[in-house]
Amino acid sequence: MLEGFSRLSQNEKLRIIASLIPDFPETENLLKSFRHGNPDVQKIIDEIAENTISNYHLPLAVAPNFLINGKEYIVPMVTEESSVVAAAAYAARFWAKNGGFHARIVSDSKTGQIHFLWPGKLNELDEKHSLLERFLREKTSDLTGKMEQRGGGIRSVQIVTNPEIKPDYYQLLVTFGTADAMGANFINSVLERMALVMKDFFVQHYPHWPEPEIVMAILSNYTPDCVVEVEMSAPFSALAPVSAGFSPAAFADRFVLAIDIAKKDVYRAVTHNKGIMNGVDAVVLATGNDFRAVEAGVHAWASRNGRYESLSNARIEKDQLVVSLSLPLSLGTTGGLTSLHPLAAFSIRLLGNPSARELMQIAAATGLASHFSAIRALVTTGIQKGHMKMHLNNILLKLNASPEEKQKAEMHFQERTISYSAVRDFIENLRKSR
Amino acid sequence: MLEGFSRLSQNEKLRIIASLIPDFPETENLLKSFRHGNPDVQKIIDEIAENTISNYHLPLAVAPNFLINGKEYIVPMVTEESSVVAAAAYAARFWAKNGGFHARIVSDSKTGQIHFLWPGKLNELDEKHSLLERFLREKTSDLTGKMEQRGGGIRSVQIVTNPEIKPDYYQLLVTFGTADAMGANFINSVLERMALVMKDFFVQHYPHWPEPEIVMAILSNYTPDCVVEVEMSAPFSALAPVSAGFSPAAFADRFVLAIDIAKKDVYRAVTHNKGIMNGVDAVVLATGNDFRAVEAGVHAWASRNGRYESLSNARIEKDQLVVSLSLPLSLGTTGGLTSLHPLAAFSIRLLGNPSARELMQIAAATGLASHFSAIRALVTTGIQKGHMKMHLNNILLKLNASPEEKQKAEMHFQERTISYSAVRDFIENLRKSR
Repeated sequence: MLEGFSRLSQNEKLRIIASLIPDFPETENLLKSFRHGNPDVQKIIDEIAENTISNYHLPLAVAPNFLINGKEYIVPMVTEESSVVAAAAYAARFWAKNGGFHARIVSDSKTGQIHFLWPGKLNELDEKHSLLERFLREKTSDLTGKMEQRGGGIRSVQIVTNPEIKPDYYQLLVTFGTADAMGANFINSVLERMALVMKDFFVQHYPHWPEPEIVMAILSNYTPDCVVEVEMSAPFSALAPVSAGFSPAAFADRFVLAIDIAKKDVYRAVTHNKGIMNGVDAVVLATGNDFRAVEAGVHAWASRNGRYESLSNARIEKDQLVVSLSLPLSLGTTGGLTSLHPLAAFSIRLLGNPSARELMQIAAATGLASHFSAIRALVTTGIQKGHMKMHLNNILLKLNASPEEKQKAEMHFQERTISYSAVRDFIENLRKSR
Repeated sequence: MLEGFSRLSQNEKLRIIASLIPDFPETENLLKSFRHGNPDVQKIIDEIAENTISNYHLPLAVAPNFLINGKEYIVPMVTEESSVVAAAAYAARFWAKNGGFHARIVSDSKTGQIHFLWPGKLNELDEKHSLLERFLREKTSDLTGKMEQRGGGIRSVQIVTNPEIKPDYYQLLVTFGTADAMGANFINSVLERMALVMKDFFVQHYPHWPEPEIVMAILSNYTPDCVVEVEMSAPFSALAPVSAGFSPAAFADRFVLAIDIAKKDVYRAVTHNKGIMNGVDAVVLATGNDFRAVEAGVHAWASRNGRYESLSNARIEKDQLVVSLSLPLSLGTTGGLTSLHPLAAFSIRLLGNPSARELMQIAAATGLASHFSAIRALVTTGIQKGHMKMHLNNILLKLNASPEEKQKAEMHFQERTISYSAVRDFIENLRKSR
């Protein structure tokens, strides 16, 4: 048992941790080498979490040439998975030549809940619903004022029962607008205040019933009323560059079939949607948003019809392939990490300081771009070949391989395992033997 | 449109990106300052993705005092969410004094699929099922040999139909053991080979039917046969340190009720499970595993009964609070990023080079620990107060605040917004006024 560990200085923590793995070489120096050179920047990162000992580096990459609603973007992406950025960039470029991504916000309300037990009757509560709502709005006006000025605030208060839980279980389901903030802190602060003052209302209006027992008050990451839609379409005649040996019509058929399968087979649907989230999460991470919140909301939504299914749709319409995606995304472009982390701030800036609604569209388009490339690879060359070819290409790029060297390497590695050292050795041998 | 961007050197990319946001100060230097000082290390991180321009730093933290199946662990965690590490460490410490976490692997099979169209009859396929399976095993033996030596390999091949998709739709659902690797590359390579050779089998055995049309072959991130369970329990008499003003019995009741609500209310279930994934993903990231794969699999599994619901369970049993968690987790401790990223390698080493099965247990226990602290806060003091108090404590720690200064700051910030600068100013003023 390590006692008092959290109270040690970071260097003391580091020394203790390093001392615990004596056979791991130079742990202390290794961990220190990942720290930021500027102590002020390092302090910001340390403050994000607790018991920090160093920084975990994930590559910060960019996918250029995204055309969304007629506007060009260079999308910042943070991911540890190879070929995700290449896949997004590939699709962005192809679709930019075909009108780009058409995105729209379906809705942008967030939700929170106050769960409580109360032996009183639902109809008595319903009778005073508007009185209760006014009371709660008044008692939280000091917290909601600024948000209202930005166009947000409390949107509605619903009373919910669920006898499956308990006969005396009640819930206030409160919806919020949170402008350009993700809004977790705002929503939780308002809900906790509401939970605190609610008793007064009940004591005054329902003196014949015992006071309500508040169980908990917290925002929900399920956001079916904060949904973005993206769509793209291209005529068959434009699909040749991506149909990889298939006729454009056959490619379109296979693409649509792949999505149909993911509508009706859960094993496939999960990986299908994972491929969408590869793109979405890379933007979520780069912009300092919370990917666990997004992931939980998206996948729960994918199961809203009683079966977990594909988030994307595809259809053929008059010799056009139409691909679309709907998903709930609660994101922020101010507050939280977006202003704290220097690289989150950079990402927001690179995107042109988008509103939260605009960022929802960008993240969704990046998800759809990743998805398009993944399904394209799956129904044509297969995913492994694509992965491996991209991996090889990247290494060859770094080694400044000539076209001739590239061709030889591609032949050589067709049936061999690709690694940086193997490719480097191969190219070095080529160059030596000249 | 940026043409040929991917072929530029990293510094050229950086310069172009920086030139696009002229009003963002010193973008180029800022991005460079986040690069690793050692070019060899930087090269490793750059190779992980494409179009990389810098590294996104996430705090690498440790949560000590995890006791899992009688063994002590210091758990590495990577997260951008404040109080997640503190919450995990808090619960780890409390539960270590109460027997710790009891974890077991329910199953560890991974799954892949070959989707194909074939006009032939299911009973004809079924008749030659074992022949087909033997054929596929033989034709992939060069790929599976090494994995078999490590205890993995192909476990089963099932034939699946789904007339909802198409009358001639077939699927081979293949299960694998992948030893200590997550196995994505292995599974995909085997599946693509199977897809390639399958036609030969059909031509030979079903010459009266057209050849099958392979649609796609890929692993599934839905892993309902790769499941870990964790449980912990404590008598009411031991709960006083965590029951925060409630009697231990009342605390236990509220805790169980919170989980019941998350079993039956989707808005609550999503955030409830998100709190579990806060801990799980922090370990997934720290050990170089793929959080999108884990998230998709876990949340789809949470909806397996036709309704999205809580992953955790709680009950009261003879004056004991028993809390448990089951979830599918496909993780690796060799291969992929685990050996490539120096800090992923560090994390694996800090955990004592666990097997994949052991890492499943550690990640699940960390998820359950995060969850316990979150639910505890929710049903007692509320989440905001806890968040803010932790935030304040961390800042005060960094400022080396004396017990007296700490007390004054806690009073002062009870109703005020907490930020590093506000707290620093407050403490500096205190010190000046002495």
